Amino acid sequence: MSEVMRRLVALLRRLPGVGEKTAHRLSIFLLTSPPEYGRELARALQEAVERVRPCAVCGNLSESTPCELCADPRRDRSLLCVVERVPDLMAIEASHEFGGLYHVLHGVLDPLKGVGPAELNIEPLFSRLSGEVREVILALSASVEGETTALYLRQRLQDRGVRVSRIASGIPVGGELEYVDRGTIGRALSGRREM
Amino acid sequence: MSEVMRRLVALLRRLPGVGEKTAHRLSIFLLTSPPEYGRELARALQEAVERVRPCAVCGNLSESTPCELCADPRRDRSLLCVVERVPDLMAIEASHEFGGLYHVLHGVLDPLKGVGPAELNIEPLFSRLSGEVREVILALSASVEGETTALYLRQRLQDRGVRVSRIASGIPVGGELEYVDRGTIGRALSGRREM
Repeated sequence: MSEVMRRLVALLRRLPGVGEKTAHRLSIFLLTSPPEYGRELARALQEAVERVRPCAVCGNLSESTPCELCADPRRDRSLLCVVERVPDLMAIEASHEFGGLYHVLHGVLDPLKGVGPAELNIEPLFSRLSGEVREVILALSASVEGETTALYLRQRLQDRGVRVSRIASGIPVGGELEYVDRGTIGRALSGRREM
Repeated sequence: MSEVMRRLVALLRRLPGVGEKTAHRLSIFLLTSPPEYGRELARALQEAVERVRPCAVCGNLSESTPCELCADPRRDRSLLCVVERVPDLMAIEASHEFGGLYHVLHGVLDPLKGVGPAELNIEPLFSRLSGEVREVILALSASVEGETTALYLRQRLQDRGVRVSRIASGIPVGGELEYVDRGTIGRALSGRREM
């Protein structure tokens, strides 16, 4: 295998869920497809990397800061919904059950893996709490790490006198928010309880 | 989601085994990782697409035509091993049981999916049969399509007076050659039988 192919395989291996075999298959698919496809994908990736960044306000991926959601005057600025990752935000948006703003942590607290508050988008959350914000909704996964993160955030948010709630029933224990159906997400949002 | 992200997701979806959800996850991983990673991957892909091509002689992926294997004077030019795809060639090379040359079909005959001889790298195989080639070894998967392809090739190769064999025992029925262990591939090569 040539050096340039080996490098491609090594970089593909760093993608989530892609092992040695899959990286080989992907690179061979890319190199035996019409070259326009590989060129187009490389160009789209480069362009996305240069233009799409986490919003400096909420952490959502966008071509602008503040992002489209943060800049939308129709959103309810008294409600902040905290999610782990961008796909969670997309899943909640797709449920059409929430009209407030978001805050993306880009992960959960996981001390065993060395993920503390400093590794997440947490401090910028506290600096958003001045004035308008009335309630912070924690829409985190029902996993051990999600629970840990929720408890940590509740403590720190209540110290600042803000109301904290957590999305309710419907999320299967141990399940990942991203994979829950829209209806369940809607019920979980409307059934949230104060912490 | 911005237009540039939507395009990236659409292109990622065309990769084998990547659906809507996975394409989203991959693109979000790429755009929340340090931008150097995405840049490097885009550059490696672009470079590979421009420099790595199927060898005009055997169909193996290489930066040169003829490829390193076709150009290697130590390889036995009287033996041609026919494989479906490049990973199969790699798997056989890793078994260190074969010192001849290869021919990559880039697929198997599959009439139901509209894949006939013209869609595969088959005609160039026949133009390689002049003089030196003594035996063609069919190292195809033990699937229905692999069998169909083997029977078709046997007919056409025997018409040209060349000896045709097929790799033997060890390949589990319905199994994909790429995933067979090296020892089994070695046994299958040495135990091949004339068709």
